[in-house]
Amino acid sequence: MSHGPAQDKPQVIYLDNNATTRVAPEVLEEMLPFLSDYYGNPSSMHSFGGKVGGKINQARERVAAALSCDPREIVFTSCGTESDNTALHSAVSARPDKRHIVTTRVEHPAVLNYVKLLEQQGYSVTWLPVDKHGRLDLEHVREAIRADTAVVSVMWANNESGTIFPVREIGAMCREKGVPFHTDAVQAVGKIPVNLKELPCDYLALSGHKIHAPKGIGALYVRKGMLFKPFMIGGHQERGRRGGTENAASIIGLGKAMELAAAGIQDENTRVKALRDRLEKGLIGVIPEALINGDPVNRLPNTLSIAFKYIEGEAMLLLLDQFGICASSGSACTSGSLEPSHVLRAMGVPFTYAHGSLRFSLSRYTTEAEIDTVVRELPKIVARLRAMSPFSADSETEGQHKAVAACAVERSTE
Amino acid sequence: MSHGPAQDKPQVIYLDNNATTRVAPEVLEEMLPFLSDYYGNPSSMHSFGGKVGGKINQARERVAAALSCDPREIVFTSCGTESDNTALHSAVSARPDKRHIVTTRVEHPAVLNYVKLLEQQGYSVTWLPVDKHGRLDLEHVREAIRADTAVVSVMWANNESGTIFPVREIGAMCREKGVPFHTDAVQAVGKIPVNLKELPCDYLALSGHKIHAPKGIGALYVRKGMLFKPFMIGGHQERGRRGGTENAASIIGLGKAMELAAAGIQDENTRVKALRDRLEKGLIGVIPEALINGDPVNRLPNTLSIAFKYIEGEAMLLLLDQFGICASSGSACTSGSLEPSHVLRAMGVPFTYAHGSLRFSLSRYTTEAEIDTVVRELPKIVARLRAMSPFSADSETEGQHKAVAACAVERSTE
Repeated sequence: MSHGPAQDKPQVIYLDNNATTRVAPEVLEEMLPFLSDYYGNPSSMHSFGGKVGGKINQARERVAAALSCDPREIVFTSCGTESDNTALHSAVSARPDKRHIVTTRVEHPAVLNYVKLLEQQGYSVTWLPVDKHGRLDLEHVREAIRADTAVVSVMWANNESGTIFPVREIGAMCREKGVPFHTDAVQAVGKIPVNLKELPCDYLALSGHKIHAPKGIGALYVRKGMLFKPFMIGGHQERGRRGGTENAASIIGLGKAMELAAAGIQDENTRVKALRDRLEKGLIGVIPEALINGDPVNRLPNTLSIAFKYIEGEAMLLLLDQFGICASSGSACTSGSLEPSHVLRAMGVPFTYAHGSLRFSLSRYTTEAEIDTVVRELPKIVARLRAMSPFSADSETEGQHKAVAACAVERSTE
Repeated sequence: MSHGPAQDKPQVIYLDNNATTRVAPEVLEEMLPFLSDYYGNPSSMHSFGGKVGGKINQARERVAAALSCDPREIVFTSCGTESDNTALHSAVSARPDKRHIVTTRVEHPAVLNYVKLLEQQGYSVTWLPVDKHGRLDLEHVREAIRADTAVVSVMWANNESGTIFPVREIGAMCREKGVPFHTDAVQAVGKIPVNLKELPCDYLALSGHKIHAPKGIGALYVRKGMLFKPFMIGGHQERGRRGGTENAASIIGLGKAMELAAAGIQDENTRVKALRDRLEKGLIGVIPEALINGDPVNRLPNTLSIAFKYIEGEAMLLLLDQFGICASSGSACTSGSLEPSHVLRAMGVPFTYAHGSLRFSLSRYTTEAEIDTVVRELPKIVARLRAMSPFSADSETEGQHKAVAACAVERSTE
């Protein structure tokens, strides 16, 4: 079994870990037997299938241990999107009389677009705004919750700005008012401590491929006692909560990845954070007219969203690509549009900056040498692009402002 | 990277391929680079992600080539269940005024339970019966289709009996009446030729893990021009038809598996079929009071469902397990009940036989020596169990009949 010829190994400086991550070698190693010799169906009667079932149980225990919850509160899904869809579907189906939803303007499309669909179906939705640092106002949340609120859905941390939301306080408000609370924790897990004993939430979504498990696996925490309505309808798998043959290898990989994520929180919040700060200082200190997007204090330790006036994020990405540097821009690029993302628009990042936004997201595999390469190359790239920019001596026009305001596409690449 | 210690390699005679299959080594080999070095997000702007996107395109072309359709008609999903749910969701959402559904009593739970939910929501459902060989009557289908039928959903081949349904004729009827036709082809793909140029269907579901791709990947064919409503709501992936980061490695594996499946159809219908017939003759010729479940003519070439009077399928499975022989029983075992499955009940298999049903399902990896081991050991197991059976001299009682009739659980292990 070859991993491809060695000369094909890509040489990249991968700083796009909020989009997806490398599968940890330890994770792949745990998965491989279940992609080769141990291929039984965990629901089968024979012991060959039963062995796989046993490893799935272990994975469920590992996920629960990493989150400080009960293994029976974990439902494996195919991705973060399915986890989010399932939580919202379950919450609204369980209380068909409640026709109001509270969420934010900066959610991931897995929540945002699901709630938009519900809105089209007649639900009333309160879309909570954020300030220029991407922060929510707790008073807005408190005012938004009504007697007919079916669910409050607020992400734990934003994928673009890295801003961390006060989910504990929001959960407490919901608990007080008897309203279910869902948090999309896809970007929080593995980056900041998650302890479900201390967090008053009812549903929590996570994704494997953001924490060094493979793509195509996720999990949903459902607090014991919560009404639950399956989203994927089929067989009795996952104790009747998710039909479909269990994705055994990837579930086992997710179990290992969660164990590693929990063990790595300290490294994430010291070494990785220090590298991120080194990158931030190295760029801000050298490149004029640059802004940090996101909360200066409560921000994911691995995330730096930075905006450079007058230039295009996509042009920077192309030039960074020549050095093998992988990052993201602040545009909703998969839509074929180069408009700023819904997150940057909600934050009110000025037009001349929003287009020139880049997001760097680090991981446990990021090295100081990689950071230093970016600090060395990016200022030259920015200078080169600014020299070419028709806007660099100009200011934004009203027409351009309008074009941005009219843009309704959402960031959807991760 | 180790595949686990060699002494751990399980020694099994795996005849449960309708439940799940071994991942083909060729498939795993194509996947591995995307579980290790090539981990980029296919939707990313950088070329590192773009390389993954290119391989996903190739996989889509491979799937389309194997089915004789256009690559743009393929949507990747997380499993057969999701494909079925998506087809039904899409069909009924696209025509909210149509409130009638036609399906069969022997569908997989991914269709059966989804349609039951719709029935609870007020849809009128025609549940088509099958005869003792598990066959549909085309006249029943014709009579069932109404002006307000939203969708006709009939599986191509049954997972338990192996009976192949006349989907081409059913599709033609639907086409004539302007009603969308969905077929769950999870058990057909890789076992009988599938040519979408010649099949008038609008949606077709398939699953990777039934054709030597890994668990956790599926695809849905959606005929060009069909109205489509996404089931998984999130980003713009799959051209807006399925949110969630693409499961790159498994999609690439599915592409390879479909290529192998198409190339292997001839082997499946000659060598594998001959082994299945050898097994059937070897058991029927030796064991008295045994019945074949399923259509004697139009049956999947790899499937043998066989019923032995007076004994329990589960007891046979346990004893077969001692020889490493993996098969399935005819009961809805994951529910914790030992009642006969909904398929055997719909076929009207007599009570004294239904409990003693075993399903053997072969694959390209099945050998003659394996078949001969079963032919040698199973008659001894049946004789031993019959000697112990309290029923073997007895006939069924009315009370037992009632218990079977009251059972509403469905087979759900695959």
